[in-house]
Amino acid sequence: MSDRPRIRLFVDQPLRAGQTVDLSREQANYLFNVMRLGPGDAVALFNGRDGEWRAVVEAAGKRGGQLLCEAQTAPLQPPPDLWLLFAPIKKARTDFIVEKAVEMGASRILPVQTDFTNAERTRQDRLQAHAVEAAEQCGATVVPPVEALRKLDAVLAAWPGDRRLILCDEAEAGSSAALPSLVADPGDDVRPGGGAAILIGPEGGFSPAERARLRALPFVTILPLGPRILRADTAAVAALALVQATLGDWR
Amino acid sequence: MSDRPRIRLFVDQPLRAGQTVDLSREQANYLFNVMRLGPGDAVALFNGRDGEWRAVVEAAGKRGGQLLCEAQTAPLQPPPDLWLLFAPIKKARTDFIVEKAVEMGASRILPVQTDFTNAERTRQDRLQAHAVEAAEQCGATVVPPVEALRKLDAVLAAWPGDRRLILCDEAEAGSSAALPSLVADPGDDVRPGGGAAILIGPEGGFSPAERARLRALPFVTILPLGPRILRADTAAVAALALVQATLGDWR
Repeated sequence: MSDRPRIRLFVDQPLRAGQTVDLSREQANYLFNVMRLGPGDAVALFNGRDGEWRAVVEAAGKRGGQLLCEAQTAPLQPPPDLWLLFAPIKKARTDFIVEKAVEMGASRILPVQTDFTNAERTRQDRLQAHAVEAAEQCGATVVPPVEALRKLDAVLAAWPGDRRLILCDEAEAGSSAALPSLVADPGDDVRPGGGAAILIGPEGGFSPAERARLRALPFVTILPLGPRILRADTAAVAALALVQATLGDWR
Repeated sequence: MSDRPRIRLFVDQPLRAGQTVDLSREQANYLFNVMRLGPGDAVALFNGRDGEWRAVVEAAGKRGGQLLCEAQTAPLQPPPDLWLLFAPIKKARTDFIVEKAVEMGASRILPVQTDFTNAERTRQDRLQAHAVEAAEQCGATVVPPVEALRKLDAVLAAWPGDRRLILCDEAEAGSSAALPSLVADPGDDVRPGGGAAILIGPEGGFSPAERARLRALPFVTILPLGPRILRADTAAVAALALVQATLGDWR
């Protein structure tokens, strides 16, 4: 790992040996003004398709610049097919959830509006930018999409029946064994092709109607998260850790 | 749970039926000015020894007040004997780690100075206040102590040999199966009397000397946290989730 450049940048251009990559104004500012790189300095690039590449600065300008792609330093490593559904809360905590979902290897991030969710909308572009930044930091080679806020009811109505929904509900605190229920069906593998999703309850909990509806759905598995009440961002990380370690890419 | 008061307060006084509890100026301000409670309103109290009690406001003043303890609403539920050791980072992230350690059920929080830790000191009183606040929020009946910053070397030199140290090291990313190694010894139970600790590496990683020393210690178990690089606060929650679910009080 030590010979890989410390600075990682997500770009939306093809990456292959000898390829020139144009920098946006923001990227040029970050590399040349903030990080003070100059010609010949190395950067790691990824685009979500071609893995991670080592590139060197060819031209550094105030409003742009160019990198030259040299060699692949890591293959594409898509996260397992694991979505995270959560009810947006206060701005800073929502940002945290997105950041942590990327670090933990969620493949798709879906903010959902529940009966007790206050948020009427989310800034999808801002959350997606957070996801890019988190991927740059954590060494991911894929940036999970952050979807627009949708009503939980609508998401459930269109739910793909073969995708398991792992429900983390604080009403379940301390009620049953968490991990055994997840691994009960060893054929059920959360990898591309399998497919699962984690649903974190909102800070105020689910409404009784939501809870009844969720529990009646055939694809729902309950995952209790201990005897204390977790904040939504804590619960998201905890649930992703348990699922990744038992079914995902932490095994 | 619904008949338990929504507001929880940590107090340092005995709790039993008929007991009068004096409020500090800060607590009185919080209850009567911020939360706008008045005489007869209910509050949940805990002191780390007597479980959780329902109390009602007897006297509400500007600089203090009194509550009357009525009945116990929850027994004392100490977390498992599970310490969290971490290297302090930026202020906000350190606050987060303490908050999350409490939610996740760490029994003792130990900031440690590693070779690559920038922090020279931590504000122990401020971090302890964060722990109290987190316990009030998450329904815990015990507030874990936050220790003063100590050098990792000194902590290891005085380590109790029968306490397992679970090392989360980003150099281990994706290297081996996490959970099996934790549960390999079924007689090793992280409950009061057993005893374990999680050590989260600093953001810059451990130094080669530290890593070599840690790996040579007989009480160290390695717990890899997946193929991505996690921030320290994310790693703390993830590691606590895995340990709680396999050895702790989430089972």
